[in-house]
Amino acid sequence: MPRKIVKSKFFFEEDYVETIGEVSTEKVKDWASNDKLKIVGKPVSRIDGYDKVSGSAVYTFDVSLPRMTHAKILGSPHPHAKIKKINIKKAKELPGVLAVLTSNNCPKIPWFYNTTVLFDPHLRCEGDEVAAVAAETENIADEALRLIELEYEELPFVTSAEEAMKDNAPKVHDFGNIVRGKPNVYSRGNVEDGFKQADLVFEDKFTTQIAIHNPTEVHCSVANWDGNKLTLWDSTQGIFTVREEVAQSLNIPESEVRVIKHYMGGGFGSKLEAGKYSVIAALLAKEIGRPVKITHDRKQMNLITGNRPDSIQTLKAGVKKEGTLTAITHNSVAAVGAYPSGGGSSGPLIGIYKCPNVNATDYSVMINAGRARPFRAPGHVQGTFALESFIDELAEKVGMDPLDFRLKNYSDVDPISGAPYTSKLLKEAYKKGAEAIGWYSKRKAPGSDKGHIKRGLGMATQIWWGGGAPPANVILKLNGDGSINILAGSQDLGTGTYTFVAQIAAEVLEIPMEKIQVILGDTSIVPYGPASGGSMTAPSVSPAVRDAAEQMKSKLISGAAAVLELPEEQLIYKEGIVLNKNDKAKSISIPDLMRKMREQVLVTTGARNANPKGYAINTFGAHFAEVEVDTETGKIKVLKIVAAHDIGRVLNRKTLENQFHGGIMQGLSYALMEERIMDSNTGKVLNTNLHTYKVPTIKDTPEIEIYIVSEGDNLISNTGVKGIGEPAIIPTAGAIANAVYNAIGVRIKSIPMTPDKVLKALNS
Amino acid sequence: MPRKIVKSKFFFEEDYVETIGEVSTEKVKDWASNDKLKIVGKPVSRIDGYDKVSGSAVYTFDVSLPRMTHAKILGSPHPHAKIKKINIKKAKELPGVLAVLTSNNCPKIPWFYNTTVLFDPHLRCEGDEVAAVAAETENIADEALRLIELEYEELPFVTSAEEAMKDNAPKVHDFGNIVRGKPNVYSRGNVEDGFKQADLVFEDKFTTQIAIHNPTEVHCSVANWDGNKLTLWDSTQGIFTVREEVAQSLNIPESEVRVIKHYMGGGFGSKLEAGKYSVIAALLAKEIGRPVKITHDRKQMNLITGNRPDSIQTLKAGVKKEGTLTAITHNSVAAVGAYPSGGGSSGPLIGIYKCPNVNATDYSVMINAGRARPFRAPGHVQGTFALESFIDELAEKVGMDPLDFRLKNYSDVDPISGAPYTSKLLKEAYKKGAEAIGWYSKRKAPGSDKGHIKRGLGMATQIWWGGGAPPANVILKLNGDGSINILAGSQDLGTGTYTFVAQIAAEVLEIPMEKIQVILGDTSIVPYGPASGGSMTAPSVSPAVRDAAEQMKSKLISGAAAVLELPEEQLIYKEGIVLNKNDKAKSISIPDLMRKMREQVLVTTGARNANPKGYAINTFGAHFAEVEVDTETGKIKVLKIVAAHDIGRVLNRKTLENQFHGGIMQGLSYALMEERIMDSNTGKVLNTNLHTYKVPTIKDTPEIEIYIVSEGDNLISNTGVKGIGEPAIIPTAGAIANAVYNAIGVRIKSIPMTPDKVLKALNS
Repeated sequence: MPRKIVKSKFFFEEDYVETIGEVSTEKVKDWASNDKLKIVGKPVSRIDGYDKVSGSAVYTFDVSLPRMTHAKILGSPHPHAKIKKINIKKAKELPGVLAVLTSNNCPKIPWFYNTTVLFDPHLRCEGDEVAAVAAETENIADEALRLIELEYEELPFVTSAEEAMKDNAPKVHDFGNIVRGKPNVYSRGNVEDGFKQADLVFEDKFTTQIAIHNPTEVHCSVANWDGNKLTLWDSTQGIFTVREEVAQSLNIPESEVRVIKHYMGGGFGSKLEAGKYSVIAALLAKEIGRPVKITHDRKQMNLITGNRPDSIQTLKAGVKKEGTLTAITHNSVAAVGAYPSGGGSSGPLIGIYKCPNVNATDYSVMINAGRARPFRAPGHVQGTFALESFIDELAEKVGMDPLDFRLKNYSDVDPISGAPYTSKLLKEAYKKGAEAIGWYSKRKAPGSDKGHIKRGLGMATQIWWGGGAPPANVILKLNGDGSINILAGSQDLGTGTYTFVAQIAAEVLEIPMEKIQVILGDTSIVPYGPASGGSMTAPSVSPAVRDAAEQMKSKLISGAAAVLELPEEQLIYKEGIVLNKNDKAKSISIPDLMRKMREQVLVTTGARNANPKGYAINTFGAHFAEVEVDTETGKIKVLKIVAAHDIGRVLNRKTLENQFHGGIMQGLSYALMEERIMDSNTGKVLNTNLHTYKVPTIKDTPEIEIYIVSEGDNLISNTGVKGIGEPAIIPTAGAIANAVYNAIGVRIKSIPMTPDKVLKALNS
Repeated sequence: MPRKIVKSKFFFEEDYVETIGEVSTEKVKDWASNDKLKIVGKPVSRIDGYDKVSGSAVYTFDVSLPRMTHAKILGSPHPHAKIKKINIKKAKELPGVLAVLTSNNCPKIPWFYNTTVLFDPHLRCEGDEVAAVAAETENIADEALRLIELEYEELPFVTSAEEAMKDNAPKVHDFGNIVRGKPNVYSRGNVEDGFKQADLVFEDKFTTQIAIHNPTEVHCSVANWDGNKLTLWDSTQGIFTVREEVAQSLNIPESEVRVIKHYMGGGFGSKLEAGKYSVIAALLAKEIGRPVKITHDRKQMNLITGNRPDSIQTLKAGVKKEGTLTAITHNSVAAVGAYPSGGGSSGPLIGIYKCPNVNATDYSVMINAGRARPFRAPGHVQGTFALESFIDELAEKVGMDPLDFRLKNYSDVDPISGAPYTSKLLKEAYKKGAEAIGWYSKRKAPGSDKGHIKRGLGMATQIWWGGGAPPANVILKLNGDGSINILAGSQDLGTGTYTFVAQIAAEVLEIPMEKIQVILGDTSIVPYGPASGGSMTAPSVSPAVRDAAEQMKSKLISGAAAVLELPEEQLIYKEGIVLNKNDKAKSISIPDLMRKMREQVLVTTGARNANPKGYAINTFGAHFAEVEVDTETGKIKVLKIVAAHDIGRVLNRKTLENQFHGGIMQGLSYALMEERIMDSNTGKVLNTNLHTYKVPTIKDTPEIEIYIVSEGDNLISNTGVKGIGEPAIIPTAGAIANAVYNAIGVRIKSIPMTPDKVLKALNS
């Protein structure tokens, strides 16, 4: 069954729950095949392109209000400490300082499942919030932070999951370091029986690093009060989630909090919840009676706004000679920081392959460091690297081609629930990808290239949800001149939501895109839609748009029938005109029709349908990588990535490619470059800026080919769309790792595969 | 049948048309009687009260944008002229001047039914737009206007309707001065036959003055472009109308124009359409690439933003001895200025009394002066003064009490269509008003008081539409904490729309008003609703709010039924809780329910129902006045006004009283004080400010009592509300005039009844 991420209300609850609510077995309205569509699926340019290139698009970072002030936050210099004394006298006396908040004068606002408060004198990681200053300028605020006098009691700290699991380890929170006190366990069949049936039992271990989200736009908020009403501009993926959490923190009705996010420079999961900075901005603004803007700098981003946790993954499998998996187990340990959200990595393992006996054990362990948060396909990115490396090994052990091995263990139904899929075109994706990369023609034996520059091909599979779900609501207003305004319950992270909303309305109502304006990202204004995460936005929102547009078409036809005094059956809608089939001269255009109807604006509302009962909804796909490894320098160059996926209907080929390019590059970076480095002696992060925290540049970009093997998944919705944000990254690291093995004949089991690791592996 | 005002598309069309569209005979959902309602009908304080008294409410006049510039308009100094030469060189050279627009460099944008353009070198009234300047400050813009060098050819002009109707009169427009070239004529029965049946035939003539709307907030716009998208803050009664007209003028899609009006300092009909200033602001802002604010000064307000036209009304009636009307005719001539909208005054006459033979002839005549526009009950205010004065005379002629005479000619059905009314409680209003003023106990023979201070009682009847109509749409969002956000397709003129929207949601969902936020007045955001005019807002919008709220209640009950696994019949909704009738302990609150439903926000949309078929929908009522006339000074003092009306359900007793107080004072002012004075020798208006254009002060305010004799008019909508904005003013002047007659025994047939007219009448 499809699952969706909901914010757990209690720390000890699961993060993932089954979707509940209304379900329907009714067949949703089909769309035409892709080649009949005129705008949907095409490489349409973003409707907000002008705003972005002209600089007129207002990101939260750009918001500037009359009398606005600037706030800065002081973070803990220690990984674990208690504040013994704070003296803010000098800071307050600095001219231009307007307010200073610390644990001494701030209300005790519960935070992180009531385990801490907004300003907690117990500091659990470097960067943990100690104080905040609002001042006339950013510089004054920064200067004031330096004038705050502090005395700390430094406490023992722990910087790795393995250390933190030990009995005598320093406790990050009083209740112990293992999240929920025990691992998350998934199990089906009997793995011991499975291992007994195997011809071969093999075990291996993989490790992955901590990676930082690092969206281009830093985390920031602007708060402004009008009486008891708060307006909060926030760089967030979930305007309604931020509203809920900020209202709860401030103990005011949600209706009095307005959260606005018109444009955003990325989030990748680090902006799914309200940050402390948002509430701090609101408190400071209330205190001084002026707007307050608070922005993180890149160092704070790297310390406290979230990361993909690391993992130590041990996999063990039983396989028969002919390649059938009989059992597979997965044990994962992740260091999830001081205030974690998520951590497990067994999702791909339990969901991709047909294997009757599976056991997965995920430990999430707290350490004195910045928090883990969902990061573009949480769990699946690290899990897929390990699983797909391991599958590559298993194939070799039984002497099979890795792709053939995957096909051997292909599951036509969801291995977790046994339910059929609404669609699964993974075989087609394998076929397309293999063709495009030259899998069967170009692939050689591992390490068989002569010379120090060795080429190799590798592949990895991805599974994700991304089917979307209700609720998502849309309001469509058709104006008297035939132009359209749409309000959609959603927000655009930069992925193209504005554009696909306009495309769908343009497709259904056959109206030029230029006549359509879309409003998103304002809790007081847009109807309602989910946070943008889990690749849920397009599959959840697009059917609501089509629903509203189809209703509008019906409304125009019935309006025309009344005005023209004709039966509806005699009328068809085409390109802004209701055509009279029997007498073209008696057709009527939208402006004329609305004038006759005495309507200035027609309004319809659309909603996302419930998902079909009894089906699993997933996206599937594979990346194929070609790499070149210099065995003298240890440097890996990715030459080409072929991505072939089943992600339902493509809404916009251009923004689809944008998402794939971004996901592939983020995956490439994860495979080869980026890693948060922490000094275990000091508990301090050593690379808190983009000079030392390495991410790829345009020169690292390989040739990229993208193939979508699916059309609309018509069982799930009237648009048949599934999400692509996360599928785009998931299999990248695994495909590259397998290609590196194919190139050099030595497996790198730890990412990032930096030159030193490659050389070390070659030498061992 | 109910009628609604629509903007006629062509100058020669009628302004009033029958409502068409979907009609329903289905009975709408009733509401409880008033005493069962807890919030609706009560004297609830405005939810926007804080914003207003704190100054944080942003009126268009208050809008201030970064880099905003200021524009001013130069008006014609002549009542009729052609521009021969314009030289803007000196104006452009003034430091701080950014742009100058004139007929020489402005595109020819059609205006006023294509009879003129935005800057027309043919100027038809004092104040007609000659040029506009945008500058860094208002003062610079003003100074630049003085530097524009102009050469005019002065043309003969005409300043009264009687003169303008003459064949050789100067033509305001080339096609002649009488609007549509002929009068508007209404006729039923045969008036000649009617006069023959009468025992008495009587004729009299009444005149009324030109009155200026003079809302507190002057007409103003702020225009800002973002690429091809225009945002226009506009002090308007019709955000969607302004959007349509501005988009047409600029030839851009309506979807790219966003019109915002959050708060407004009154309109009274003068802000129902886009003004030239709005389009000029947009053109200047486009040209200079910065926001432009344009405000009228009080002189421009008094010259060109509209007025209630004057009237010369001749009435003739046939009456039988016992008081039955056998025939009545009405001939009216109105001077409607150079660009008129509306003018006739026969509405009350054809609609109030049972009389089989009626003829009404309305001439609207253009003169070289500012334009007539709808002004709070257009036509009915001047028409009711004349009709109800005349009815008072007729009653005396046949020796009847004026109230008894009205009851004698009472019509139980709509005399125009013969249709029944959805409700008509005019008799009850008469009864209540008569009791309260002491009609039968205190009223004496005309002029019978001794001494020079004479008291008198008078009354007048009102009829208006105000039943409301679709379309009006509302979106209601219930948040996870039980608070509510509502978007209503409407705008608040200052009359309390924000508040009644919240009241209705609070009533239905039994939630405190403090938890409800309402958004109005933004074309890109609110769903759709009509312009606020014709007393249509509350009767159109309130049923849509109730519809959305009732749907939300149903949604909560069905959600609770699913979550609690109980039949819906076992559940009732009460004060934010879905109660389990059989087991109170298993009831569930909104926050708990929504958490269980995994819903962050629930959304419903509501719409105004169609009006019932075959009924006339009107408001009815009467004002009773007690006055004191000093026969030595001619000064009239209004001591008391009793207003007794059938206006359906009261939504808010406090804002109802506000509207009545305002309407009564505006009517008192019309009866006694205000008048636009024009010098017929120069064609110039002599009193263009509030020193010389007299309006009443708090010291002129009489005791006011308001009685509403109706509960909900349940045939029309689920709230049963009819409008009160216009009923409040209509009968004021007539009631005062009749009271003055009753006091002094001499009838003043011309308003305003200034002391000089009273003394002249006493002396004749």
